[in-house]
Amino acid sequence: MRKSIATVSVSGTLTEKLEAIAAAGFDGVEIFENDLLACPLSPEEVRARAADLGLGIDLYQPFRDFEAVPADVLAGSLRRAERKFQVMRRLGADLLLVCSNVSPAAIGDDELAAEQLRLLAERAAEYGVRIAYEALAWGRHVNEYLHAWRVVRMADHPNLGTCLDSFHILSRGSDPIGIEAIPGEKIFFLQLADAPLLAMDVLQWSRHYRCFPGQGNFDLAGLTASVLRTGYAGPLSLEVFNDVFRQASTERTALDGMRSLIALEQSLDGLSHPAVPAGFAFAELADTGTLGGLLTALGFARTGVHASKPVELWSQGEARLLLNARDQVADPALVAIGLDSPDPGGAVKHAGALLSPVLPRERAPEDAPLDAIAAPDGTEIFFCDTAWLADFGPGAAIPGRITHIDHVALTQPLHYFDEAALFYRSVLGLRPQESLELPDPYGLLRSKAMSAPDGAVRMVVNIAHVGAGQQPWQHLALACDDVVAVARRLRAEHPDLLLPIPDNYYDDLEARYEVDPELRRLGVLYDRDGAGGEFLHLYTVTAGRVFFELVQRLGGYQGYGAGNAPIRLAVQHAGA
Amino acid sequence: MRKSIATVSVSGTLTEKLEAIAAAGFDGVEIFENDLLACPLSPEEVRARAADLGLGIDLYQPFRDFEAVPADVLAGSLRRAERKFQVMRRLGADLLLVCSNVSPAAIGDDELAAEQLRLLAERAAEYGVRIAYEALAWGRHVNEYLHAWRVVRMADHPNLGTCLDSFHILSRGSDPIGIEAIPGEKIFFLQLADAPLLAMDVLQWSRHYRCFPGQGNFDLAGLTASVLRTGYAGPLSLEVFNDVFRQASTERTALDGMRSLIALEQSLDGLSHPAVPAGFAFAELADTGTLGGLLTALGFARTGVHASKPVELWSQGEARLLLNARDQVADPALVAIGLDSPDPGGAVKHAGALLSPVLPRERAPEDAPLDAIAAPDGTEIFFCDTAWLADFGPGAAIPGRITHIDHVALTQPLHYFDEAALFYRSVLGLRPQESLELPDPYGLLRSKAMSAPDGAVRMVVNIAHVGAGQQPWQHLALACDDVVAVARRLRAEHPDLLLPIPDNYYDDLEARYEVDPELRRLGVLYDRDGAGGEFLHLYTVTAGRVFFELVQRLGGYQGYGAGNAPIRLAVQHAGA
Repeated sequence: MRKSIATVSVSGTLTEKLEAIAAAGFDGVEIFENDLLACPLSPEEVRARAADLGLGIDLYQPFRDFEAVPADVLAGSLRRAERKFQVMRRLGADLLLVCSNVSPAAIGDDELAAEQLRLLAERAAEYGVRIAYEALAWGRHVNEYLHAWRVVRMADHPNLGTCLDSFHILSRGSDPIGIEAIPGEKIFFLQLADAPLLAMDVLQWSRHYRCFPGQGNFDLAGLTASVLRTGYAGPLSLEVFNDVFRQASTERTALDGMRSLIALEQSLDGLSHPAVPAGFAFAELADTGTLGGLLTALGFARTGVHASKPVELWSQGEARLLLNARDQVADPALVAIGLDSPDPGGAVKHAGALLSPVLPRERAPEDAPLDAIAAPDGTEIFFCDTAWLADFGPGAAIPGRITHIDHVALTQPLHYFDEAALFYRSVLGLRPQESLELPDPYGLLRSKAMSAPDGAVRMVVNIAHVGAGQQPWQHLALACDDVVAVARRLRAEHPDLLLPIPDNYYDDLEARYEVDPELRRLGVLYDRDGAGGEFLHLYTVTAGRVFFELVQRLGGYQGYGAGNAPIRLAVQHAGA
Repeated sequence: MRKSIATVSVSGTLTEKLEAIAAAGFDGVEIFENDLLACPLSPEEVRARAADLGLGIDLYQPFRDFEAVPADVLAGSLRRAERKFQVMRRLGADLLLVCSNVSPAAIGDDELAAEQLRLLAERAAEYGVRIAYEALAWGRHVNEYLHAWRVVRMADHPNLGTCLDSFHILSRGSDPIGIEAIPGEKIFFLQLADAPLLAMDVLQWSRHYRCFPGQGNFDLAGLTASVLRTGYAGPLSLEVFNDVFRQASTERTALDGMRSLIALEQSLDGLSHPAVPAGFAFAELADTGTLGGLLTALGFARTGVHASKPVELWSQGEARLLLNARDQVADPALVAIGLDSPDPGGAVKHAGALLSPVLPRERAPEDAPLDAIAAPDGTEIFFCDTAWLADFGPGAAIPGRITHIDHVALTQPLHYFDEAALFYRSVLGLRPQESLELPDPYGLLRSKAMSAPDGAVRMVVNIAHVGAGQQPWQHLALACDDVVAVARRLRAEHPDLLLPIPDNYYDDLEARYEVDPELRRLGVLYDRDGAGGEFLHLYTVTAGRVFFELVQRLGGYQGYGAGNAPIRLAVQHAGA
């Protein structure tokens, strides 16, 4: 399907926007009027620039507060419209978005609205322009899409149709099934935006918090499917107003928008995700020689060395860590994760189709092939079958209290939180699980957990607030079958490795729950969910950018001990 | 009155918070429980630290979801409460805030609530603790302050009183006059927070957007006056949850909080503001030798030189600009403004009482005394009578189209927008006029205008978004009696000095209004308000950090042409 995007959805000057939108592979654009007004290029020059870039101008928008007005106002509005038709002719745009009137002067009279819109459509026809009439969610009288369609029907002019906007429909809780009652040829345009569910004034919600399909909570696939069933053959066009996107990289946002439409299209085509990863194959850490001691203390042993690279395999149970002696890193850091994949080649192909950077692999001829992509924060993600292990020789598995990798927490660059949500959802097939704002001493940390349906792969994406200049910490959570036993041993043998937990935390914990006093002595944190599931966890001190968490889930606990994160963050900041 | 602040209101670790709070001059603190839980100091150590700093611990908070629960839940809650009483004894705190229950398990039964709160008060009494029961605006059954007071009255225990919180009262639109029905000795605590009027879920509004008194839209003085009429003798205590304050400097936020309470107290004492400035005496620009030419082009002439400093006076009508040949600046910048003050000494004294930095003046014995303070962005503000002019010799006034300084626009440092609002309101007596979010190509710019009631002094405070790395532009708007005439001359003689305005802007302007086509030729922008007032304005190109705007107000127009600002910003960014 043709893919389009409104210029307001990305940052930059109009020229920068058009270039980035073309580079991302879009077929067309909606020219948002303010972008044109502030542009030094004439409409003819904009038209030529878009054509050079291979972009059609699919829509000019918005034209506001037109219909259902007193006669004396109408004359001025028609004059205003004719000027716009002239600009559109110069621009080579033949579709104008008219939003439902929000002015207090508007009259609640559908017949009047229809009559005036018919007049507008007649004038438009003289310029070869068509009018797409849209119900704004906060329109004064017309604010439901079926109401806008009723007015269009009453006006009955070939140059007048309706524009559907997923935000305006879904933010009001309207059922999009009614779309199927509209003939496809009368749907002149389809604008798509997702949004997180927020309890706020719909105008503010719309103007500041829209996001790309798959980044929010709306069912865009369902709505789009309804539109397509009408026979609609126009573009899928993104129209997003987002404070963060306005500040982000033009190119990166445009690419992310395209990814969202490809993912939407895949879901419409009934293309299933490639098999969701079945678990963590490994996590790879860039080492500066300091991690071996820490891993030994945690009960890991070096069970192999890569045949051709300076990489060691450290194992315990099914938890496998690669220590990579890269000499270019200043501090230990998590640089890659391996995912057990039923179809590594298919997974990379799927990721590539979703515009994820596929990484070139340098490997010796005898090494196992490993396919990798880059996650939005730059962490490498490998899709593995079991062949890769052979590169590390015939090391035996080391049993221990640590059984496997529970989750990996990465820090996403500022401005790209929504991008990460879409990436993990569309590329890896993980589901959004928990979204939180956690206070640390110097701000709020946004955090989103994504997990495979069976919980075998869990990723947590954090984004730090602005201005604290804090380390983008990463962490690796290792599942234990008895975290208290591990804590006992560590406390006895390596007390300096454990992050100290304030006694005050335990005063509160013991006020809330009857917990074993040993937790306090050992520095083990505790959480309980509403269904009685329990979470026991502890943290190591940080080594460079990275720290380890040992976790034990009991009784079906699915969370991450979020209530304890502020305690952990405060202690880490105090020590940083 | 005693002044207190909740530790949650400022950033940092608990120790950092206490130090900054004491340094700002507060008498006491509310210990927010999470700050204690994350703190490595024992309650005894926190108590000692606070005492060393001269801070009392006026409240421990919050204790949640206690009252009106089934009997089996009650036992656990009482056990939890006793643990808190023990912590409070160690902390030396004797007042506990209990918020109304928000749990779905809570029962809508005032008698049950009262009975259980009485039980809690009895237990508290054994520890010497008193309970302050507060209606959260989103409490499940109790969410109005008079409802909380009814429950307290029914419980009838000397250790149980109510806590009033201005946010919870005013956010619901409750009339605070009912407070006067509560005996002062039963108001155990008063928490103060202001907030901007936002149409959003009250919980989110409360948790993220509170601000200090005088920074928002609530009538804190009226509410506080009602509380004081009851005979309440406890502290005025700030309790603010604000995402930006969480990221800002601990010391600066604490100081700003204290300023807000001093200003509140002044208004309660009926202390009027010192006379509001009557106009701009001058604006001072650090010059690198480039501004003289620009000013000459604008019709200014050098009318004097300072007797003892490398400062020139340039005049036109009542617009007076000082060019200061400071050799330490790299680019021209606006460094100071002079305000015509009926009582310069009193104005500085007032500013000092509000914790504004009073600047030491270096001057030769023969110079006129000039009293100055620093605005939050570092700009120096001088309070002047007319004596200062004598330092520049007997220059004659130069008549011209430019008549006076209309307004000055400064860029406030990130995180300190609310601080600026409070500063200009409390220190200078300006009134908030217009608050906007303006799109520029790389984000949204927040802007707030503040003006003297008669419009003789107008300040605009802008704050740039994060990440654009843009110049913190400042600008000086000069009033003209005929901006079109000035534009004609400039266009003819100095076309390169004018910021070019895109033709597309005029296509839209002429679609909306019947304006003189000459505006397009001259690059003059236009705005009209709802009452027919008109605004004509144009901009010069920037010189360093600074640019000039020429403005003409017609028909009582009071705004700043905000609708045109995105055009101006886009052109400036394109040229930056």
